[in-house]
Amino acid sequence: METKQKKALENVLTRRFFLAPAFEIFYTRGNDGLYDFGQCGTQIRQNVISQWRSHFVDNEDLQEISCPCLIPQHLQKYSGHVSTYTDLMITDTVTGEHFNAHQILKKRLQKQIDETTQPMIKQALQNFFNSVDGFSPADVDKIVTTHKITSEVGNQFSPCIQFDLPFKTTLSPFSSEFYLRPETAQGILVNFKRCYEQAGSQLPFGIAQIGTAFRNKISTANGLLSAREFQQAQIEYFIKNRQESVKNFSEVKDMSVKLLSYKQQMDGDNQPHSTTIREAIEKKIIDHEYLGYFIGRCWEFLVSVGIDESKLRFRQYLPNQHFAKDCWVCECLLNCGWTEIASITDRSADELKAYSKASGTDLSAFVKFDSPIQKELFSAKAVVKILVRDFKQNAQEIKKAIETNGFSYEHTMIWNFLTDFITTLCLIIIFIYFCFPILTVPLPSYQSFRSYKFELYIGESSFKKCNVKILVKDFKQNAQELKKAIETASQTEYERIQKELINKKFTINGFELPAESIQLVKAVQSIHGESITPIVIEFLFEIDKIVYSILEHSFYLRENDETKTIFKLRPNIAPCKCAVISFMQKDELEPITAQIIKQLRKNGISCRVDNSGVQISKKYARFDEIGIPYTVIVDLDSLTDKKVVIRERDSMTQIRVDIASIHQTINDLAQGNVKFEELK
Amino acid sequence: METKQKKALENVLTRRFFLAPAFEIFYTRGNDGLYDFGQCGTQIRQNVISQWRSHFVDNEDLQEISCPCLIPQHLQKYSGHVSTYTDLMITDTVTGEHFNAHQILKKRLQKQIDETTQPMIKQALQNFFNSVDGFSPADVDKIVTTHKITSEVGNQFSPCIQFDLPFKTTLSPFSSEFYLRPETAQGILVNFKRCYEQAGSQLPFGIAQIGTAFRNKISTANGLLSAREFQQAQIEYFIKNRQESVKNFSEVKDMSVKLLSYKQQMDGDNQPHSTTIREAIEKKIIDHEYLGYFIGRCWEFLVSVGIDESKLRFRQYLPNQHFAKDCWVCECLLNCGWTEIASITDRSADELKAYSKASGTDLSAFVKFDSPIQKELFSAKAVVKILVRDFKQNAQEIKKAIETNGFSYEHTMIWNFLTDFITTLCLIIIFIYFCFPILTVPLPSYQSFRSYKFELYIGESSFKKCNVKILVKDFKQNAQELKKAIETASQTEYERIQKELINKKFTINGFELPAESIQLVKAVQSIHGESITPIVIEFLFEIDKIVYSILEHSFYLRENDETKTIFKLRPNIAPCKCAVISFMQKDELEPITAQIIKQLRKNGISCRVDNSGVQISKKYARFDEIGIPYTVIVDLDSLTDKKVVIRERDSMTQIRVDIASIHQTINDLAQGNVKFEELK
Repeated sequence: METKQKKALENVLTRRFFLAPAFEIFYTRGNDGLYDFGQCGTQIRQNVISQWRSHFVDNEDLQEISCPCLIPQHLQKYSGHVSTYTDLMITDTVTGEHFNAHQILKKRLQKQIDETTQPMIKQALQNFFNSVDGFSPADVDKIVTTHKITSEVGNQFSPCIQFDLPFKTTLSPFSSEFYLRPETAQGILVNFKRCYEQAGSQLPFGIAQIGTAFRNKISTANGLLSAREFQQAQIEYFIKNRQESVKNFSEVKDMSVKLLSYKQQMDGDNQPHSTTIREAIEKKIIDHEYLGYFIGRCWEFLVSVGIDESKLRFRQYLPNQHFAKDCWVCECLLNCGWTEIASITDRSADELKAYSKASGTDLSAFVKFDSPIQKELFSAKAVVKILVRDFKQNAQEIKKAIETNGFSYEHTMIWNFLTDFITTLCLIIIFIYFCFPILTVPLPSYQSFRSYKFELYIGESSFKKCNVKILVKDFKQNAQELKKAIETASQTEYERIQKELINKKFTINGFELPAESIQLVKAVQSIHGESITPIVIEFLFEIDKIVYSILEHSFYLRENDETKTIFKLRPNIAPCKCAVISFMQKDELEPITAQIIKQLRKNGISCRVDNSGVQISKKYARFDEIGIPYTVIVDLDSLTDKKVVIRERDSMTQIRVDIASIHQTINDLAQGNVKFEELK
Repeated sequence: METKQKKALENVLTRRFFLAPAFEIFYTRGNDGLYDFGQCGTQIRQNVISQWRSHFVDNEDLQEISCPCLIPQHLQKYSGHVSTYTDLMITDTVTGEHFNAHQILKKRLQKQIDETTQPMIKQALQNFFNSVDGFSPADVDKIVTTHKITSEVGNQFSPCIQFDLPFKTTLSPFSSEFYLRPETAQGILVNFKRCYEQAGSQLPFGIAQIGTAFRNKISTANGLLSAREFQQAQIEYFIKNRQESVKNFSEVKDMSVKLLSYKQQMDGDNQPHSTTIREAIEKKIIDHEYLGYFIGRCWEFLVSVGIDESKLRFRQYLPNQHFAKDCWVCECLLNCGWTEIASITDRSADELKAYSKASGTDLSAFVKFDSPIQKELFSAKAVVKILVRDFKQNAQEIKKAIETNGFSYEHTMIWNFLTDFITTLCLIIIFIYFCFPILTVPLPSYQSFRSYKFELYIGESSFKKCNVKILVKDFKQNAQELKKAIETASQTEYERIQKELINKKFTINGFELPAESIQLVKAVQSIHGESITPIVIEFLFEIDKIVYSILEHSFYLRENDETKTIFKLRPNIAPCKCAVISFMQKDELEPITAQIIKQLRKNGISCRVDNSGVQISKKYARFDEIGIPYTVIVDLDSLTDKKVVIRERDSMTQIRVDIASIHQTINDLAQGNVKFEELK
């Protein structure tokens, strides 16, 4: 874009309040990387979001959820890749200006690569360039010192430090440390379990979220592209394995996209190749169908909102640029260079596993086999006995509680305990004294019992050798845990236990238990499936960057009159579908104009009005510069012929149509059902 | 609501993931006042927001903008009411539980009021109750000590402290102190100027914003109603004065609403009165038409999204409950009592004035008089001269710059300066030396000159007595300021200056200037209007509380089968308009089902699918419990008669309609264009 055009773009963006630096009236210069979106900006952003919602959430049947911006600090740690949220910062020791160390090094290297003509040196420099993203602060310092790298104005750099991107805050009154989420992904992942249930406990399925994310930035010089607060639209898609074929793959397989693979970049080749998705998968450029499918869908989406296809490419990250298994970023060519606006990442199952471990919550999915497998397997049931003393009515109450909770119980008569003389004696004495029934029940969930007042009846000292005692003693802390350990042990564990049982006891979790505490059975079982932690494929869209790219790509100056600027926005993205004006400020035209506006809005067609007294050509210019595709003009003839003029923004040509069907006409034009020229 | 019903509601809200405490898998109990909205919750919230947007933004022609959540700390101070963002906290010294001091006192007083039968004491207690919101921490401590107020379990309270509601954070690397916005209003107010321009510089106009706000809470016991992060939809409407009549007032004037005025409350009468808006204004219960108009619109909106009209009232705040000129809160009766879900406040012009003062930016509006007023007035123009030295080509360049910026200039020949001998001598010497033309120009904007390299030519020492010198000397810091001071002085100032001019000089801003620096004229002028700071009427909607109220009000148990729960959600609010299922899992029905889904989605009608193998009655129950109004059932007859069944959620009755127009039928039903019974 020429400088003149660039200036005109900047001018119209603030003058018509698409967006402006926030809190502007309080700052004389610079900004905090925070932006206000005015009416036009807000409407365009909303349109991009609606389009995204219909393209992804509706078409792919995703569950859209919304999680808070505030996230507990430990969540970040659990995810297992805190380092993703730091940048390396070096500072000009004289001016105090801060820079991203990796970017500075890469900029310098790129310059040298461009200047070198010798292929060998070029390749060596490229290799060096490719390794920069993996540099630690110490690596950076070493290179800065060795190669005497200074700032552009020749000043020395301070030592390189880690710069934390997340914003920190505190929840009062408990002073819990919280972050503002640096991305919307975590909220989705911690909700996996609930959403999996809503999806009928079946894979694959996807969860989407649209929301605000926050990151501190070392430099905010790049305007909206380096904003500290930004909108993201994110999808986490949960799949069984990478080999399975994707349901609607045929819809994208012949789509042509431009790819720049990581191997190409390693070879110093930075020209993206045009290829179909199918071909890229066959040639192993794209790792699997899911990645390919969503690369296609993403390309389709970006083009549908008005990004120039010739300025779009997918670049594969080098292994040192990300923590995931594979990552393709969608880059868009802007004035400031290739800019990342979306990404598709194979995040593997690692995070879900990490969250599952940290939370103690099962975050796995059960995947059915095509046909059941027959296998001889151990299975075990814990036999945990508790004794309950009846305080008058309580026995009946507990009995009821056990039954309503779906557990079985049995009355145990005293002679069951005769094997231990001392036990029995005590029991008989107390039995006679209190007149209570003794219930032997499989231990129900601790939770379900909590609300019932019951007490364990056996004192510790009395039953030293009683096998019941072990579990009773440990009931509060361990019984539940032991039960779980017994019933969920691995096959190898069961084999060991079986061997130990010869001695009428066994150990588990470091406890020695009597043989009666386990019912261990080996039998042929039909195995219908297995529990797996799903692989997560992530799609991230930087909505604000997409909005900015659309604006830059659709901006142009009117041929023959370069003072007039136009946004060639698609009707689905434009701030509104049409403007409605009267040709002259005549009172008799007012009712018609008002009626048309009402008619359009009732039919869900957004429109703007301009009642000011300025010339009609000036009104056109006002609408063109905010990208409104159609203008409806009511004139004196409208009074008699019940028709109005529609003017098209780019061609500036006009047609005359019936007022009665104006909403239908505008809708058809906006949806692309008819072309403007066809209506002439 | 009965306990049974309450439990069933809580159960379905989490089981079907309308919403759930955030980060639940990491917490065994309690929550941080943060909530995840699942698919149903997100869709309902979005529907409420869309409905709000169409009801207010579209119908009232508002400018919707979006501002960042991060706001600079000083913004809060500038607004002039920091105290709004603190609560008073007292703590149970034994359990450590925190309480809102005002709420504790009011709760105790209310109990006493309810228990008292003596009218005199009741009135005295009511007066006391009404004054509680104005209490300072010291007042609270005094009352707690004097009346020996303890917590419910009898423990002592700690001294009362101020509890800050805003979340604090820091912008790196510059360590600027920021807040998370506690409400969305400020972002709107600081953008007044830009939006006023976009509105064609005319009053009245309104700005809307929908977004997230954040507040620390002393207690989060009230679930979603006491969330720390929440969605607000806010309108700031800027008006000339309170007397003017509102454009569409006639549309609401006969609407009946329930009002509880502040006078009524002072009299201890807590029964809201039913009245029409017009009547309430005539009786001075509502202060002006704008308040009345928006109270009506607000009522209309809340009813349109499904809030039970019989559980709605507008209560006027007591003067000590708010900082504004007048405030009406819309309260909704829920299980936990009357809950504030919206408010309409006359914020006066104070904040705009405060922001204008703090920022030095003019935040006034120009209001035209109906006809111009004739008045004899001073007006002044500053005559500021600067001299520009030509460094080779620069003179031409500057000349061009001046011309293209629309300023005039004149060549000044040396003899203009002959009055001062020394000056001239120097000028001639340098003139000969450098061969430059001298331009005398009215000072253009400092900004427009900044990009041109030019230097002032006269050294300070040489021109002690030259009148040019004064301005030249002050050019960098003061000339612009002086020019502004001269041209914008008040009429009283001009009168003073006129008197001073007899001595061929005058003072302004503490500077003494020569008479030539001002052109002061007194003439009869037509005054077309005046600058005023607009009055701000604010409408705040707590979206999440509205969502919760809708859910509570629309929830019921199926008659004759209380295990079945239903949300009687309106189609415009329901998670989707319809569900589509096959009567049996037959392969031949699949294509019809798929085609219907495609057809519905293409026409913008949201729908859900359930392909699971469960009984049809179970599917109905699944849809009913998330409030889907219609279910489309494809059966074997559909293959031949090309018709499908539509089942209605609440009546459970069915009709049979054509597949071809199914989207139209569902749309008509959802929009209320036809009634279900009419289609039978």
